[in-house]
Amino acid sequence: MPPRTAPQVSQTTTLLFFVLVLLCFFPSIFHYLWSLPLQLILPSHPHPDPPHTPADAPDAPHPTSPTTMWTQKHITLPSRARGSYLITDLVVRELPEIRTYKVGLLNLFVQHTSCALSLNENWDEDVRKDMSDTLDRIVPEAGPNGEALYRHDAEGPDDLPAHVKSALIGASVTIPIKDGKLALGTWQGIWALEFRAAKHTRKVVATIQGEKA
Amino acid sequence: MPPRTAPQVSQTTTLLFFVLVLLCFFPSIFHYLWSLPLQLILPSHPHPDPPHTPADAPDAPHPTSPTTMWTQKHITLPSRARGSYLITDLVVRELPEIRTYKVGLLNLFVQHTSCALSLNENWDEDVRKDMSDTLDRIVPEAGPNGEALYRHDAEGPDDLPAHVKSALIGASVTIPIKDGKLALGTWQGIWALEFRAAKHTRKVVATIQGEKA
Amino acid sequence: MPPRTAPQVSQTTTLLFFVLVLLCFFPSIFHYLWSLPLQLILPSHPHPDPPHTPADAPDAPHPTSPTTMWTQKHITLPSRARGSYLITDLVVRELPEIRTYKVGLLNLFVQHTSCALSLNENWDEDVRKDMSDTLDRIVPEAGPNGEALYRHDAEGPDDLPAHVKSALIGASVTIPIKDGKLALGTWQGIWALEFRAAKHTRKVVATIQGEKA
Repeated sequence: MPPRTAPQVSQTTTLLFFVLVLLCFFPSIFHYLWSLPLQLILPSHPHPDPPHTPADAPDAPHPTSPTTMWTQKHITLPSRARGSYLITDLVVRELPEIRTYKVGLLNLFVQHTSCALSLNENWDEDVRKDMSDTLDRIVPEAGPNGEALYRHDAEGPDDLPAHVKSALIGASVTIPIKDGKLALGTWQGIWALEFRAAKHTRKVVATIQGEKA
Repeated sequence: MPPRTAPQVSQTTTLLFFVLVLLCFFPSIFHYLWSLPLQLILPSHPHPDPPHTPADAPDAPHPTSPTTMWTQKHITLPSRARGSYLITDLVVRELPEIRTYKVGLLNLFVQHTSCALSLNENWDEDVRKDMSDTLDRIVPEAGPNGEALYRHDAEGPDDLPAHVKSALIGASVTIPIKDGKLALGTWQGIWALEFRAAKHTRKVVATIQGEKA
Repeated sequence: MPPRTAPQVSQTTTLLFFVLVLLCFFPSIFHYLWSLPLQLILPSHPHPDPPHTPADAPDAPHPTSPTTMWTQKHITLPSRARGSYLITDLVVRELPEIRTYKVGLLNLFVQHTSCALSLNENWDEDVRKDMSDTLDRIVPEAGPNGEALYRHDAEGPDDLPAHVKSALIGASVTIPIKDGKLALGTWQGIWALEFRAAKHTRKVVATIQGEKA
């Protein structure tokens, strides 16, 4: 009689213990088994866009979890002389990863000290011309009677004013991302301002962070 | 004899299995039941503000883990004419979520191009009046003899100067969060600067990210 | 017979139940016990650099996972009078944690309203002197004939201009981190600009976030 009862207990206990150990090492296995039939029935994968893996962070994990994901890329702006330029389209084209973020921030950082990035009017080209001229009046190359204003002039009369304008406008912009798009206002665009008279090619570090869709 | 033992085993095993399954699907239920009497005894909840669920990220998971959490909200500033306004209290009131972050950053981003956000003196109202007047001197509406300075004047003489001031001051501020509070200096407040003469209503995107307490 | 079987069932069940409860409250205990012998056998800790624990976030978890990690520290700048100062070396020395980030952002935020942080030329000291002088011309202490320009003058003639310069340049900078280094351009450095005539000691909140290497 005892040998008959003991095995019975042992079997149940063994099963229970097996389940317990399984649970210890794979705590999500029950949820997986439970949701497996649902996944087979339900239409399709919630994330259909395939190529949204970050370029410079290819090993970023858990694309379906709400962990913050990072993307960092270098953008080279087209070579340009003094002026204000609208670069919203270029930025969006170079950073298709923006579309994969549900909520986040884009930081654009120009690695130079005589140009700047800003956010401003995206429609009338005259605003961009007026901006460059107004900054020239605020930080002129010489005094009202043509007198020298700056110690640092070895790189030309436009160099020191360019450094001051760069400090006034700033080397970087931070733009919120909402539902895969830059949360810019209707009339708001990203500007690159070149302050040197001669053409310069400028490098921008783009850093995106946020939760993926 | 066997029938008497078997049911006994079965009952215990059933209970155990039920508990096990319960645990699989609700892993925090034991912790909840265990801490329930303590919660009833102890004075109050450490986070008394009930509606601190992120507005645009309602499914943000693991509130007790140190994962970076995101909150994104839209704030509408009261309609105002030209001037500098202190909005620290308004921002803190509209963003009770700040209290739930142990360490983080708040980004405020105004979606317009003829106003700005800044950080400045939070006490003397004269500083705010002087700021607006000084910016008018730096970016005047007309030249010293009343001559026109700008190409873009279809929206009024105050429009282009407003765009330049917006570029000089900036459309966004980023403020560190420490222990549930904005890590502002003693005399530091958040300013909204309206550069248009007529009243305008301005929209701000607030993006909070950080580790929760 | 029953007394012999019942205790046997009870003992096994009790043990199982104890294990279950243990697992409920300490879900990682089995993983810990399981990996303990491996940790004793394997050569050493995967992160050999000892002092990179975040100062204000000492309990930051999962150093090997790509979760976003936060570090927040206070830096006190050396007491200085009016001028522009290069602080790149000081910042890098005070924030050895930067080296532990593979990708991220550094936000420096000065908690005062009559000084500023900026990014600018890191070589010629004359640029820094010219910057301070140019800002004095843009925001003078008095009008061209010495007339008073500001309402707020209780703290001296240099105080209100300092607030305006602070708004123009900005209280914070955000710098991308790439492979454990600040992604600054070749000629780009971090500047602290003091706008008050007398010496002032300024506090900076440094917030680093990103994925660890």
